[in-house]
Amino acid sequence: MGDTIEFSELKPPERILMGPGPSNVHYRVYRALTTPIIGHLDPDFMKIMDDICEMLRFVFQTKNKLTIPISGTGSSGMEASFVNVLEPGDKVVIGVNGVFGERMVDVATRCGAEVIRIDEEWGYIIDPNRVIETLKKHPEVKVFAVVHAETSTGAMQPLEEIGKFLKGGETLFVVDAVTSLAGCELRVDEWGIDICYSGTQKCLSVPPGLSPITLSEKAVRVLHSKKSKAQSWYLDLSMIERYWGEERFYHHTAPISMLFALREGLRIILGEGLEERFKRHQTVGDYLKSGLMELGWKLFAQEGYRLPMLTSVILPDGLNDAEARRKLLYDYGIEVGVGLGKTRGKVWRIGLMGETCKRQNADALLLAIRDLIRK
Amino acid sequence: MGDTIEFSELKPPERILMGPGPSNVHYRVYRALTTPIIGHLDPDFMKIMDDICEMLRFVFQTKNKLTIPISGTGSSGMEASFVNVLEPGDKVVIGVNGVFGERMVDVATRCGAEVIRIDEEWGYIIDPNRVIETLKKHPEVKVFAVVHAETSTGAMQPLEEIGKFLKGGETLFVVDAVTSLAGCELRVDEWGIDICYSGTQKCLSVPPGLSPITLSEKAVRVLHSKKSKAQSWYLDLSMIERYWGEERFYHHTAPISMLFALREGLRIILGEGLEERFKRHQTVGDYLKSGLMELGWKLFAQEGYRLPMLTSVILPDGLNDAEARRKLLYDYGIEVGVGLGKTRGKVWRIGLMGETCKRQNADALLLAIRDLIRK
Repeated sequence: MGDTIEFSELKPPERILMGPGPSNVHYRVYRALTTPIIGHLDPDFMKIMDDICEMLRFVFQTKNKLTIPISGTGSSGMEASFVNVLEPGDKVVIGVNGVFGERMVDVATRCGAEVIRIDEEWGYIIDPNRVIETLKKHPEVKVFAVVHAETSTGAMQPLEEIGKFLKGGETLFVVDAVTSLAGCELRVDEWGIDICYSGTQKCLSVPPGLSPITLSEKAVRVLHSKKSKAQSWYLDLSMIERYWGEERFYHHTAPISMLFALREGLRIILGEGLEERFKRHQTVGDYLKSGLMELGWKLFAQEGYRLPMLTSVILPDGLNDAEARRKLLYDYGIEVGVGLGKTRGKVWRIGLMGETCKRQNADALLLAIRDLIRK
Repeated sequence: MGDTIEFSELKPPERILMGPGPSNVHYRVYRALTTPIIGHLDPDFMKIMDDICEMLRFVFQTKNKLTIPISGTGSSGMEASFVNVLEPGDKVVIGVNGVFGERMVDVATRCGAEVIRIDEEWGYIIDPNRVIETLKKHPEVKVFAVVHAETSTGAMQPLEEIGKFLKGGETLFVVDAVTSLAGCELRVDEWGIDICYSGTQKCLSVPPGLSPITLSEKAVRVLHSKKSKAQSWYLDLSMIERYWGEERFYHHTAPISMLFALREGLRIILGEGLEERFKRHQTVGDYLKSGLMELGWKLFAQEGYRLPMLTSVILPDGLNDAEARRKLLYDYGIEVGVGLGKTRGKVWRIGLMGETCKRQNADALLLAIRDLIRK
């Protein structure tokens, strides 16, 4: 029966994770991962679930009751945001200025929705006025969705004006905050966001595998008043909320160890304080950007709308993308992100998120780049 | 901003996990969870992915190329098994003799499939001849699906005859092996199973969060020849296979730490040997069943078809279910599973899976039960 196959001990190399996620993880989070698990219906586990929800509300800056981690990576949160409110034939407006906006279009289309796109050049934000004009023309639209931090381009989308416009209306405001949550200002309640989802492996600095999500009362009303069942059983929030709520009704076995990790990661964030954390991401991100510009490298994203935690930079002529990334990885232990989609080979995406977001990491990369160029 | 909220250190109580999963986890798996993560596109991670696939093939006893862990719990594997092959209007036959058969019906219905049910009393198996007769009447059926180890009842479904009948035909044979994989004989290739999925938190003894799945060439042909896109983006195997295959095309960020854990859990299984592991589950399971019967308790599942790793037992008159489970949990640190659905309050489900599957754990429970009855 093949008992002869042998696999060596797990010994991955050490890396400074400066790609677009995952980011490095605090030792306290790893320690939490080693905590012997208990059952997903154990009364002691319920307390842990409640702690997580309360801390997530703090990080999302919301009072939304339905604020929970979905048992999948960030993309499962994206899918949950659409399958739980859309029905075939519903109209959706989506801002598309990068890979993750495109992904939203794909997900919404698979729900049978009619998608109206607002396209913008990659690296640029979508003008809130264009959004508002489009939504005025289509008052019947059920969802407007946009990516807060476009991880594929490094641009940060302004949300406040759009949220103000949508407040009080019927259209739901869906925001992808996979890369932004806990790395820069994101005020779910104040900005009128109805559904906001994220991932654990970016500025939360917890390994990938969970997708925190929050739904406003308005979104929950749509969830409950839908005629048809969500097309996804696994991501059906009308069932999942019964497990995370008072009823504790079993839906699926929760990913216990990852939830232990998330709880600890959130405790670390609370210990640092949100404002302090945002400031750190801004300062270290600015420091890296200055360093790159000093080298004569040009930034890809639109000035004034650059993400603090993810810097997209245009590769100078003559630098071989694949070779340079390979050297960074093997000679310096540094991972940076390749350009996605149409920027492949032309752009690097450099993350300074959560635990990775330290001046010494920015320095290590700048030094390595100087070395590479000199050679 | 609420910086005053404080949450204590994570200190869940110690438990012997004798419910229907999660099971206890080996210290080597916890150690793997503390391994500092690397990126999901790191060349060194690709080797780890390949190791996992190869070991999963060994455990599933298959040569299927598309054998991977889905980034979600067992139920996500169930959903992946249906959304990737079904299109609206397709006919499906599903054997239903417990909660997980019912769940399959729900999932398939959400795909727009027409479901033909073969119902059987809970605790009993579905007679393979009934299945074959039904499938003969409906040769146009795209999928026949059944649960191998019905975790809600403790019954083990015979699969071989059905697989033999389906071999060579067009109908796909889908099997839920969430509870059975690595705990009892399950020969994917030999038994002609086309899609088989499992979960990590049962006999694999890895924390919950991943769902190993394997697809035969026949299933992959259906996946590739479907007219419409899978309704789930997150679970779309036609995209996920490009990440796990040679192309390494990014789909979603893999749950790195959980994959480290799965790799180590699989190494432990290879070290023990499958046959040895099956024997251990059979021996310890039989030991528990004898002990319960000596106490005069009656087993719930049909004789001759009882799962080794999960024993369902009828509570004797006068025993208060909730109170007894509470005492077991708090006074003895033992978790057992409550009856699901229509067996709630009447049955316990006692798991002896993976690391939990030890004679001393069975003894601890039998001793505790004797104590409880005496009082």
